[in-house]
Amino acid sequence: MAGESNASLLNDHKEKHFTAGEIVRDIIIGVSDGLTVPFALAAGLSGANATSAVIVTAGVAEIAAGAISMGLGGYLAAKSEADHYMRELKREQDEIIAVPDTEAAEVAEILSEYGIQPHEYSPVVNALRKNPQAWLDFMMKFELGLEKPDPKRAMQSAMTIAIAYIVGGIVPLFPYMLISSADRAVIASVIVTLLALLIFGYGKGHFTGSKPFWSALQTTFIGAIASAAAFAMAKLVQG
Amino acid sequence: MAGESNASLLNDHKEKHFTAGEIVRDIIIGVSDGLTVPFALAAGLSGANATSAVIVTAGVAEIAAGAISMGLGGYLAAKSEADHYMRELKREQDEIIAVPDTEAAEVAEILSEYGIQPHEYSPVVNALRKNPQAWLDFMMKFELGLEKPDPKRAMQSAMTIAIAYIVGGIVPLFPYMLISSADRAVIASVIVTLLALLIFGYGKGHFTGSKPFWSALQTTFIGAIASAAAFAMAKLVQG
Repeated sequence: MAGESNASLLNDHKEKHFTAGEIVRDIIIGVSDGLTVPFALAAGLSGANATSAVIVTAGVAEIAAGAISMGLGGYLAAKSEADHYMRELKREQDEIIAVPDTEAAEVAEILSEYGIQPHEYSPVVNALRKNPQAWLDFMMKFELGLEKPDPKRAMQSAMTIAIAYIVGGIVPLFPYMLISSADRAVIASVIVTLLALLIFGYGKGHFTGSKPFWSALQTTFIGAIASAAAFAMAKLVQG
Repeated sequence: MAGESNASLLNDHKEKHFTAGEIVRDIIIGVSDGLTVPFALAAGLSGANATSAVIVTAGVAEIAAGAISMGLGGYLAAKSEADHYMRELKREQDEIIAVPDTEAAEVAEILSEYGIQPHEYSPVVNALRKNPQAWLDFMMKFELGLEKPDPKRAMQSAMTIAIAYIVGGIVPLFPYMLISSADRAVIASVIVTLLALLIFGYGKGHFTGSKPFWSALQTTFIGAIASAAAFAMAKLVQG
């Protein structure tokens, strides 16, 4: 009994930890692209002599499209994974009932990959055979490597990514909203976005366990490369 | 011996299966956004009375920026996961050497979550203790749920996503390259992109095991929503 409540507390703790980590991951996904692509698009267009008005129009349209594509796309992907999990769960359930010997052999195979001998793993296999729910959980995790998805996560993930993308995208764009000369606005945009990329990259490194300074540089580097490419392509098309 | 070579063949088969699945997943990621965002951006700009020339400039700049952001971003994310794996591997290795009793207790805890009793799992725990390499693999997989990343995958993933994004983005954009009147080009772009989204969505459903018709509709729906939003935002800014 104590073991069960401890395991349950541990699972709760793991789940909260897991969700917080997933929210951070979604923010990173949204802000990474949101800071980079609108910035590069705006810089590229300014290099092709577009006015601030055109740049803001294009930028705002891109942010709306990007937020929806990433958000809705992420939602459908999460839903699809949840459907996949339920289909695999049903299939394992059917197999445990219909062909238990085959399933038991699969458990044996999993454990034998770790050098465990039949006489060592058979008590485990027999214990699972007597406990179909635990057996099912074991197969889902150790044969298929699937975690039970939280139904709330799909919507949460979509909203987080979309909002993060919008917030990220506004940063490089607002100088063009305030400064009507695109040539001057681009300088402000570069400074503001560079700072944002450095700070965000540093924070990303901190949360993901990579060296924060290195992460800051990498993130800023991507922004620089993306805007250089956008600039080059825009000039190519214009000239 | 026979068991080892069978296991090795099975692993090879699983790895090839795994990689093929990852390449398909990366193509889906790239084409999903590549078809949607440039299409929506172009449609939005045409609604704000931009010329085909401006639209092509913006579109091409966005495709370049998007491909790099997603590609490089994906590459760094994969590298970061690989670094994370190596750090966790080192830590588990140290723990196995320094505090084997604690690690053995962790194995016991993992197995007991499946209702397996101490007298049933101790032969397994002891077998692992005698085989440090297998013990390490077991902890990486069953305690941490981490797969050993293939060093080639990061670059492969980045290139696949970037190229898929570019291919996806060209589709809605090329009508504007051929038709100088944006009002007429947008009609062609809508038709071409709608078809592409339906076909791609169908294929995506086929590969991911979701109902292909439903997937085709969902994918097209995202494209429609994204372009409607881009259109609305562009009109909002212009007017």
